[in-house]
Amino acid sequence: MTVSKPLPGFRDFFPAEFAERAYIVNTWRSVARRYAFVEYDGPPLEPLELYTRKSGEEIVGQLYNFEDKGGRAVAMRPEMTPTFARMVASRANALRKPVRWFSVPQLFRYERQQRGRLREHFQLNVDLVGESDVSADAELLAVAIDIMRAFGLAEGDVVARVSDRRLLAALLAGVGIDEAQLPAAYAAIDKIERDPREVLLERLANAGIANDVGERVLDLARPWTIEDLRAAHPHASEHVDRMERYLALLDALGVRKWVKLDLTIVRGLAYYTGIVFEIFDRQGEFRAICGGGRYDTLLSALGGVDLPALGFGMGDVVLGELLRSRGLMPSSEPAIHYWVAYDDPALLPMAMHTATLLRRLGYAVEYALREQSLDKQLKAARSAGAVAAVLLKRDTLASSQSVTLRRLADKAEETLTMSAWMDQLTAAHEGRPPVDGLQGPTGID
Amino acid sequence: MTVSKPLPGFRDFFPAEFAERAYIVNTWRSVARRYAFVEYDGPPLEPLELYTRKSGEEIVGQLYNFEDKGGRAVAMRPEMTPTFARMVASRANALRKPVRWFSVPQLFRYERQQRGRLREHFQLNVDLVGESDVSADAELLAVAIDIMRAFGLAEGDVVARVSDRRLLAALLAGVGIDEAQLPAAYAAIDKIERDPREVLLERLANAGIANDVGERVLDLARPWTIEDLRAAHPHASEHVDRMERYLALLDALGVRKWVKLDLTIVRGLAYYTGIVFEIFDRQGEFRAICGGGRYDTLLSALGGVDLPALGFGMGDVVLGELLRSRGLMPSSEPAIHYWVAYDDPALLPMAMHTATLLRRLGYAVEYALREQSLDKQLKAARSAGAVAAVLLKRDTLASSQSVTLRRLADKAEETLTMSAWMDQLTAAHEGRPPVDGLQGPTGID
Repeated sequence: MTVSKPLPGFRDFFPAEFAERAYIVNTWRSVARRYAFVEYDGPPLEPLELYTRKSGEEIVGQLYNFEDKGGRAVAMRPEMTPTFARMVASRANALRKPVRWFSVPQLFRYERQQRGRLREHFQLNVDLVGESDVSADAELLAVAIDIMRAFGLAEGDVVARVSDRRLLAALLAGVGIDEAQLPAAYAAIDKIERDPREVLLERLANAGIANDVGERVLDLARPWTIEDLRAAHPHASEHVDRMERYLALLDALGVRKWVKLDLTIVRGLAYYTGIVFEIFDRQGEFRAICGGGRYDTLLSALGGVDLPALGFGMGDVVLGELLRSRGLMPSSEPAIHYWVAYDDPALLPMAMHTATLLRRLGYAVEYALREQSLDKQLKAARSAGAVAAVLLKRDTLASSQSVTLRRLADKAEETLTMSAWMDQLTAAHEGRPPVDGLQGPTGID
Repeated sequence: MTVSKPLPGFRDFFPAEFAERAYIVNTWRSVARRYAFVEYDGPPLEPLELYTRKSGEEIVGQLYNFEDKGGRAVAMRPEMTPTFARMVASRANALRKPVRWFSVPQLFRYERQQRGRLREHFQLNVDLVGESDVSADAELLAVAIDIMRAFGLAEGDVVARVSDRRLLAALLAGVGIDEAQLPAAYAAIDKIERDPREVLLERLANAGIANDVGERVLDLARPWTIEDLRAAHPHASEHVDRMERYLALLDALGVRKWVKLDLTIVRGLAYYTGIVFEIFDRQGEFRAICGGGRYDTLLSALGGVDLPALGFGMGDVVLGELLRSRGLMPSSEPAIHYWVAYDDPALLPMAMHTATLLRRLGYAVEYALREQSLDKQLKAARSAGAVAAVLLKRDTLASSQSVTLRRLADKAEETLTMSAWMDQLTAAHEGRPPVDGLQGPTGID
């Protein structure tokens, strides 16, 4: 019997799919590094308690958890934040502040099976610890938006919807919501695009919020300008000022056009304490691409160090769907630079020599491992995505020590002596590192 | 209460440790690609049966296995080969042969706790499917050896010990070992460096191998040249010829000096069918760095496709120890190109503008998110590993729109107008992609 498939919700990454995943991950890394974030990682298996302490026992129903052979309750990581908190806490004094760290963990959740819902995904986590100023919030969102730009998306394609828990709490207090009613008010505003107004009012009523107060709660969710907010809610001016400064700093970071103030962004997770954001495609076709915000009290709750912090997560699945739907996912499988072909099996060692020289220069090179006709070798070269073929022919090698280079796209050919070619190749490499990719010279001009 | 440590045998990768892991993984990838191998990956969690079918029920004692919430018996992957076999089998007809694939999975085993024994590691897997000729064996070993070279190791540092199961079986048959006694003979030869001769002879006797035959079995383990083998064992000439050709092709691939014929290399795993090899440090300080060989019957047993195959695995732990002990592990944490410093909090938006411009050119840039003295900012810049600082000073900006660039290593400074600097920066970038690393121009010459 044969197990021919991965577990439900898990993916095999064949080379073409791996190339897409690598494109996403490499773009994440490249942008995060420009913002001076450095990469870390933790174990994919952690003590179960790391997650229940943050999220309560109810999270266990969604986990891949078990008892290991030493009797420890363990779980495959469903998120990175608890590991991050533990790591930061363990070296809190030694780390330069602000801590700018990112990671690309694979995460695991036992989700109910639905179309497009996987049980594993890769998630970029970018976190900044030790800075309470709103400048840090602006810097963080700029990373997320610059990633969108790096993928070829424009401000007409995606929007970052931003809010501030403190601002919303002040506005809610202003319309008569007390501390105990806040969660119900947040929940209603969070659902305002999905559920009918009557349903939301009923839920608010169930939480002890009178109908007229409930109406005013839901009215807060309308689009606001900074000026309108300031005029309508003078008691919240401290928080309006902060939002105004946030937007101004986002302008200085060149991403203001991608950003929209939107008080309906609440973020489900209970631990956010300040500015929160989510990035969506403007056509509303997909779930959120990215979400995050400020969680100033979480590190002290989880890790025992009292440091302000903020961060976001961005998964590979929704992002991949968006890029594919917009024609922005490069479809190329990894290719090779040279295929070394030969017309006599006795030339195999010569082909190996040639391949070895080219590989030492940093090129990706393949050749036939067994006797094949030249035609068949060139066909294999094309199907391997080779840029050029090196033709080793017994007769020309014997008469003039010459090889023929053929560019496979247009069959342009050049015949030159082995030593002239070697000179050309090494000259092309003087002073530059071997290429990883296909930017290198093919030897044909 | 705080969970302050990872599970026993699991690693937190702080940025410095992550940089070492990335150095190893990136070097693996770079060399494998030069040999025209393409990367794939599979799920880190698989049906338990995938492993018991290959290794029997006794492997379960070493696994992180459990029942998932859907009642499936699952295990965290202890090795990549069963996943690889499943993936190749599922597309066996569509794949171009030979299949040249590599992967860098994290693998998990519940090992007994010992010094230096982890319960997870990263392992390069390089496999080649569809070619039975010994040229494929040579190509595969060349990848492993070229990786050693890429890490700065030389043929005086490490040695690839090679053998051939078919050759050894023929020699054993020649001294009187029958098919049923082969496993006992393999086991004795495998242990010849570790256990006393009397002990080995006793074990052979227990397997029904007479003492004089046992002596001859152990004598086979002595160093051999091809010529001696041919003379002493004419009945095995087919296998001696193959070994001779293997060594000649390794010479054509430029790695012959790293290779030693050594019949004591048996490889514990039962599934090898032909040439096998292991790479060791010549000082004998560490366990094997790498091991692999030909397993022509495994794919048909596991995946139901009858294709010859060979491959090797190389873990990050022993390799990392070796590189560190030889001073070959680059110690640098990721660094940044520019630190933008400013002497007036009102210049924060200007610092953000400057950072944004530099980041769009591909540089890694940091700046202070809150008011700090210029001295403190420059100290932070140095401790962040910045190459250069951009000094924005209120007075010079106001009087001449000038900025000062300071190279932090030697405090060399240059003051120039903002626009002249921008021209310099963009000119330096014409026609070349943004850098990832520190090879880019600092703007100071």
